[in-house]
Amino acid sequence: MVRLVDATEKDLPLMLAWRSNPLVYQGFYQQDSPLVWEGHVQWFRERPSSWRSFIILYDERPVGVVTIGQLEHFSPEIGYYIGETTLWGKGIGREAVRLGLEFIKEQGKEYCHTTVLMRNERSVRLLNSLGFKTLGNARKGEIWMAKEL
Amino acid sequence: MVRLVDATEKDLPLMLAWRSNPLVYQGFYQQDSPLVWEGHVQWFRERPSSWRSFIILYDERPVGVVTIGQLEHFSPEIGYYIGETTLWGKGIGREAVRLGLEFIKEQGKEYCHTTVLMRNERSVRLLNSLGFKTLGNARKGEIWMAKEL
Repeated sequence: MVRLVDATEKDLPLMLAWRSNPLVYQGFYQQDSPLVWEGHVQWFRERPSSWRSFIILYDERPVGVVTIGQLEHFSPEIGYYIGETTLWGKGIGREAVRLGLEFIKEQGKEYCHTTVLMRNERSVRLLNSLGFKTLGNARKGEIWMAKEL
Repeated sequence: MVRLVDATEKDLPLMLAWRSNPLVYQGFYQQDSPLVWEGHVQWFRERPSSWRSFIILYDERPVGVVTIGQLEHFSPEIGYYIGETTLWGKGIGREAVRLGLEFIKEQGKEYCHTTVLMRNERSVRLLNSLGFKTLGNARKGEIWMAKEL
């Protein structure tokens, strides 16, 4: 069973641990080393109010994160990672993103978009399977994808 | 400020995240991939009662683990890791091990021992600085060290 719950400050050490794992951050844009606590806390506290982070619970334990941004835009952005790397390939990320898309739709949105590293083939496949289409290039090495909700 | 508190089941996701980071587990004996949840929980639940795990709190946030084993032996074993890798080199591990040694001494013990990978020079230096002496070889690639408390 996969569900999303709002991330809070008590989740910050776990999120830091996940985001500091090279196996995880190799999928992130422009991160090539583990994170420093102070910057991590600042990131969480100073995000615009139009950003939401959710902890992915799998069988009620935290295993990853879905982040939704630009909720004021007609096409919000969605991002995700499974921090518990041995769970990759089991469809948990796909279900979590699907729940994130439901959330975006419930906000009255008709579209959403994401960016993903070209080399992250697993994630590109996941997004394709949910109906995301490639719109073009985002930043260097990144694909820009979008979906009608 | 560094202090140790007993690890409980609620700490298992964070401990799994730390122990699944290649930067961390490269210092462990015979681990070359991230951990699977079920095995991790089993390890925690089925340890002998003579083993204790403590969460290292640094400024009240969890940053690593001290494990003390064979508490029934005249020379218990101590192990540790700092899971928040960007804190390495700040003396937090040293202080945590020092607190672990105090705990062992409070149990009425006069000695303790540890094993450490030869290639883990940082940890060997830390243990030397706390008075650990090399007794010889442990398992392949590992040094056996001990200290009078």
